[in-house]
Amino acid sequence: MKAVVVRPPKVGVSIEELKEPEPEPNKVKIRILNTGICGTDREIVNGKLITARPPNGRDYLILGHEAIGVVEESCCGFKKGEIVMPVNRRGCGHCLNCQIGRPDFCETGEFVEAGISGLDGFMREYYYDDPKWLVRVPYEIKDFAVMAQPLSDLEKSLEEILNVQKRVPIWTCDDGTYNCRKALVIGTGPVGILISLLLKTYGFEVWITNRRELNDMERTIAEEVGLEFYNSANGYDGLKEKVGRFDLIFDASNAFTYIASQVLPLLNYNGILGLFGFPQSGQLSLSYAELQSLIFRSNVIVGLVNGQKPHFEMAMVHLASWKTMWPKTVKAMITKEVPIEDEKEVKEVIMNKLPSEIKVKIVWSK
Amino acid sequence: MKAVVVRPPKVGVSIEELKEPEPEPNKVKIRILNTGICGTDREIVNGKLITARPPNGRDYLILGHEAIGVVEESCCGFKKGEIVMPVNRRGCGHCLNCQIGRPDFCETGEFVEAGISGLDGFMREYYYDDPKWLVRVPYEIKDFAVMAQPLSDLEKSLEEILNVQKRVPIWTCDDGTYNCRKALVIGTGPVGILISLLLKTYGFEVWITNRRELNDMERTIAEEVGLEFYNSANGYDGLKEKVGRFDLIFDASNAFTYIASQVLPLLNYNGILGLFGFPQSGQLSLSYAELQSLIFRSNVIVGLVNGQKPHFEMAMVHLASWKTMWPKTVKAMITKEVPIEDEKEVKEVIMNKLPSEIKVKIVWSK
Amino acid sequence: MKAVVVRPPKVGVSIEELKEPEPEPNKVKIRILNTGICGTDREIVNGKLITARPPNGRDYLILGHEAIGVVEESCCGFKKGEIVMPVNRRGCGHCLNCQIGRPDFCETGEFVEAGISGLDGFMREYYYDDPKWLVRVPYEIKDFAVMAQPLSDLEKSLEEILNVQKRVPIWTCDDGTYNCRKALVIGTGPVGILISLLLKTYGFEVWITNRRELNDMERTIAEEVGLEFYNSANGYDGLKEKVGRFDLIFDASNAFTYIASQVLPLLNYNGILGLFGFPQSGQLSLSYAELQSLIFRSNVIVGLVNGQKPHFEMAMVHLASWKTMWPKTVKAMITKEVPIEDEKEVKEVIMNKLPSEIKVKIVWSK
Amino acid sequence: MKAVVVRPPKVGVSIEELKEPEPEPNKVKIRILNTGICGTDREIVNGKLITARPPNGRDYLILGHEAIGVVEESCCGFKKGEIVMPVNRRGCGHCLNCQIGRPDFCETGEFVEAGISGLDGFMREYYYDDPKWLVRVPYEIKDFAVMAQPLSDLEKSLEEILNVQKRVPIWTCDDGTYNCRKALVIGTGPVGILISLLLKTYGFEVWITNRRELNDMERTIAEEVGLEFYNSANGYDGLKEKVGRFDLIFDASNAFTYIASQVLPLLNYNGILGLFGFPQSGQLSLSYAELQSLIFRSNVIVGLVNGQKPHFEMAMVHLASWKTMWPKTVKAMITKEVPIEDEKEVKEVIMNKLPSEIKVKIVWSK
Repeated sequence: MKAVVVRPPKVGVSIEELKEPEPEPNKVKIRILNTGICGTDREIVNGKLITARPPNGRDYLILGHEAIGVVEESCCGFKKGEIVMPVNRRGCGHCLNCQIGRPDFCETGEFVEAGISGLDGFMREYYYDDPKWLVRVPYEIKDFAVMAQPLSDLEKSLEEILNVQKRVPIWTCDDGTYNCRKALVIGTGPVGILISLLLKTYGFEVWITNRRELNDMERTIAEEVGLEFYNSANGYDGLKEKVGRFDLIFDASNAFTYIASQVLPLLNYNGILGLFGFPQSGQLSLSYAELQSLIFRSNVIVGLVNGQKPHFEMAMVHLASWKTMWPKTVKAMITKEVPIEDEKEVKEVIMNKLPSEIKVKIVWSK
Repeated sequence: MKAVVVRPPKVGVSIEELKEPEPEPNKVKIRILNTGICGTDREIVNGKLITARPPNGRDYLILGHEAIGVVEESCCGFKKGEIVMPVNRRGCGHCLNCQIGRPDFCETGEFVEAGISGLDGFMREYYYDDPKWLVRVPYEIKDFAVMAQPLSDLEKSLEEILNVQKRVPIWTCDDGTYNCRKALVIGTGPVGILISLLLKTYGFEVWITNRRELNDMERTIAEEVGLEFYNSANGYDGLKEKVGRFDLIFDASNAFTYIASQVLPLLNYNGILGLFGFPQSGQLSLSYAELQSLIFRSNVIVGLVNGQKPHFEMAMVHLASWKTMWPKTVKAMITKEVPIEDEKEVKEVIMNKLPSEIKVKIVWSK
Repeated sequence: MKAVVVRPPKVGVSIEELKEPEPEPNKVKIRILNTGICGTDREIVNGKLITARPPNGRDYLILGHEAIGVVEESCCGFKKGEIVMPVNRRGCGHCLNCQIGRPDFCETGEFVEAGISGLDGFMREYYYDDPKWLVRVPYEIKDFAVMAQPLSDLEKSLEEILNVQKRVPIWTCDDGTYNCRKALVIGTGPVGILISLLLKTYGFEVWITNRRELNDMERTIAEEVGLEFYNSANGYDGLKEKVGRFDLIFDASNAFTYIASQVLPLLNYNGILGLFGFPQSGQLSLSYAELQSLIFRSNVIVGLVNGQKPHFEMAMVHLASWKTMWPKTVKAMITKEVPIEDEKEVKEVIMNKLPSEIKVKIVWSK
Repeated sequence: MKAVVVRPPKVGVSIEELKEPEPEPNKVKIRILNTGICGTDREIVNGKLITARPPNGRDYLILGHEAIGVVEESCCGFKKGEIVMPVNRRGCGHCLNCQIGRPDFCETGEFVEAGISGLDGFMREYYYDDPKWLVRVPYEIKDFAVMAQPLSDLEKSLEEILNVQKRVPIWTCDDGTYNCRKALVIGTGPVGILISLLLKTYGFEVWITNRRELNDMERTIAEEVGLEFYNSANGYDGLKEKVGRFDLIFDASNAFTYIASQVLPLLNYNGILGLFGFPQSGQLSLSYAELQSLIFRSNVIVGLVNGQKPHFEMAMVHLASWKTMWPKTVKAMITKEVPIEDEKEVKEVIMNKLPSEIKVKIVWSK
């Protein structure tokens, strides 16, 4: 069968013919329908992800951690024909959080991640998986359900943020909702868009920023969903003047080192800053006075990683609701579909991001 | 303007011509689109709801606590043409929970409820409301969004149940979800159906029961959503044999007094019983051994009432997701629409429940 | 070595000479200092506890689940001479709650309890234990630290009650404390006294009831601690008139079946009833109207069992604080000390409760 | 009556004769017994606290926010002779958190603080106070109960830290306690000592650090309580080698800007850093790699301020327990007592910190 193969830390990607996987007891045979490509894949194929590594004892890794498949043979609680999505991070088996199914909070760091680190990914025609790691996909959202993987990370992130904020006796508004709470999302890439949709779904007033104007696609989404936009090319002073302070700031910029001292002072009393994007360079610098203010205002900074099975399930529900509420936005999510047969194009989209890309998916079968 | 009027505790209902409401500062003028009818309305018009009472100083009450309307003039954060749904219970103004927008947990009992107790309801052509109590309705679900009011009660109920269960260090499964948790819903009326959809959305395995077979409409829903059914005409012994114990039991039967001693022994360790339906007669009886077992198994019984604005917002999102995932179910929800012009039929559907009714709505304007 | 031995379900208890336990790797050798006697022990020796059973493959059980001992040889994180208290319930090993050290919420029911069910108890001169189950005892409270075992059950109970009440957005008072919340404790036995001290420590206004007047010892405690008393010989109507409704009711009566319909109507809006005492006979009966009221008032009933290691640690801290704040009360806790050498008296106090007993302890060594 | 008076931002302090306060309805007359002096007082008298200001319309402020007093006349739920401690921060009256008695999370910044900002303090012979802000002091701890004010800030801090950590599904150990969790406290001043005692009370393994060796008094406390010490004069590398990473780091150094890049890498997966001390100078600097690690490890940084009435009540209980468990430590807490009659010495101890000072108190009456 065909598979997309990488040999980290080598640069490059190949489509190779591999042996079909052998049946395993109590595992579900899955035929892949389509797989998504994200920034992490591109870091791997460009040799930039230090943590990328094949399964033990092998020199190659099957790529892909975003996938939708179909159950080939009924087994272990799943019926033939059901559409499923695999969870990509799998636990270390030792620590308490992994034992209870929450390797997003693994404490040993010995977890594996399909298609990334220590475990083959999903860019192949078939594979077998433990039913424990499979999430059911509603048939009606299968065309864009591949978004549920990146969305799951943000479901977990917002869940964690709201859990942290339970430290504040009352963080809801005087009508019991979050409608009076202002959220600022830094960055309008796929992560920025998805967390904005989620924050809006939870009732927040949402501002998104970028250092350029929105492109057409982003503007369509912002209008349909009701997101406010601020161009931060000249810094954030104007934003504070216009909107005031924010109760929640979510960094999806991969460049927080450069903007920390502009952004942190935007935090309101009891406000929280969620760091999701990995800064790739630079040095964060804060004066003692800015640190005093952070303490005085009871602020929190939290590092956010990885969604797990409960978050995949939440993602399915939210995608289904967005299909109803925001049809243009959902349509805009899939930027391009490339059939696996078109090998050249497949390699091209894996290596390089398209302009205005939200999600490119490889179609393996229908 | 037309309005549906009651004079509790008198039996009966009339459609009367009332003066249009006068504008009020900082209030939003709303033209009613449609209103739903529920069991509480029927208790009022049949003189059976002891708590029903007009606003102070008046002998009549405008009926109706489930409504969708359209904003007539832009005001106070709302734009002309937006579709909104009013929250029906309004706080006492004194206790802390009412002060923070959560009169569902009012501690004085002095709250009012539109169309039920102390405050005019929504079965009229126009009215003015405080923006604080208005929930935005996504345009795409407006045809069945009237379900969001009864659903909000169940959103709050499930939220409370899950909050209570945080007493158990781990109540999720070994994959972090609720997929291994079994829920039993007693009763297949509108409340039973709605809570079942919600439990399924949260990942529970859901069993519904009635003392008869499902009718066609119920069977369609059960199949589409994936609900299991048990006919309890001969008691619950067979259910325990077949399925084992339940982690969550939700009573929507209005007859819990009669089944308590059969149902309570179905609770698993750490299980919770939610009482939603108001029993109308009978005497609950439990032996000392059954009470011992409840203690020994760390069970909880919780009384569940009223959803508030955050729960209306959650209901909108869930209705939107159900439209995508379960289209037949959503379609089945609106049993009948009656135009307000057909006064005889309006009175008929207010007085008497239709066979297989989920929701009957009165159409006031388009 | 000497040990107190039972052969359930046979009535009776004997003091026998058993072989000393053999050393086990990574286990701590403990010399017992003293052991407490409680109602459960008396149920066992009187053949009334159905769940009492020896370890597998044996016909006898060493009694005792309340003990203080001293480490005989340094091992596994404990130093020779340290005073320790063993946790009595040990997990099933299978369910998630047992895996994370919380067998108080075991979901299989396959846990064991030292001195009660499936595991030898602590009424013997020496034994070996896993350091995981040992709690450090501050030297200064060693004379009454045996109270920490029964107290741990109540620490867990109150923790669970407060966790359940997080369902209410605001259950604290307008000064952030529990000072305005009224708690009613039914029964003035050791359990009733201990939970009353704990509730007072957490800031509640505490009422205790019994169907007779307080005896001298109880009166001393009530005065020192600031507990209010109500004689319920003629029912609870007078109490409601005098004090109003209660936010928390704790049943320590072992007779809740008989008083349920008098006590439940005393619950305030959002109030919680904790059932701790095991009713031994009778039939609980509630009318549909009483059940309606329970629902309407958002009440909760919760079954409360067993404290675990974190609760033993909390108990040590509270006992230490009570020694400072309420010295007479602490002194009154140990009703009698009987040396193990006085075998006749030991058997006597195990079989029969003393008048006004809070805790009788057997002294094994100094 | 005598009072200690300041005129911020002027340097200096005077003891002046002021008019006795007039009785106010529903307020409790309090005779001050003793008042504590802390770093904030010294910043005020040295003109360094920017936020220091008299009540509106006045040019002077009565100093003092740590006090124990005695009720002079029974009133409003308090009896003559009861010992009480006032809460120092009072709410803004507008925001939801202040309305529910939690001005520690005030969102307007318009709260006042007795003896510091906008409200007279407690360094005077008599004053009247609202019973809402008075905390009962157990008679047996009155000699050192003045510690409850600074301790309340740390009770709140640890409560908030533990609340934040509920974001982690399991942050307790495999025995349900915090015994396996390592806490690092930076700084051995009064704040560092008090939080260490508290962390130990909650079951943490506690390490304290300073850039010098412990003095005799600190060593006595560390030994009695069981605190580990590390001398950080040469940085923290040796600590990581010796102990590994920490689950909780508490900064009480007032110099976090200088050590951030050494200390943050000591945080374990899911670890939390609490910032309590206000850095007075310097610039915090973190590389992109250190920030990546913070995200990758799901770390949290939280700013910690102010305890409220519930935390004062918790502080009383803990002080009482420490008197039993750690008598030498409690004795060491009060470094010196100065009678108000000795005006020169009073001014001296307010202006300047003693060597090895934990708490100096001014005695106003007995």
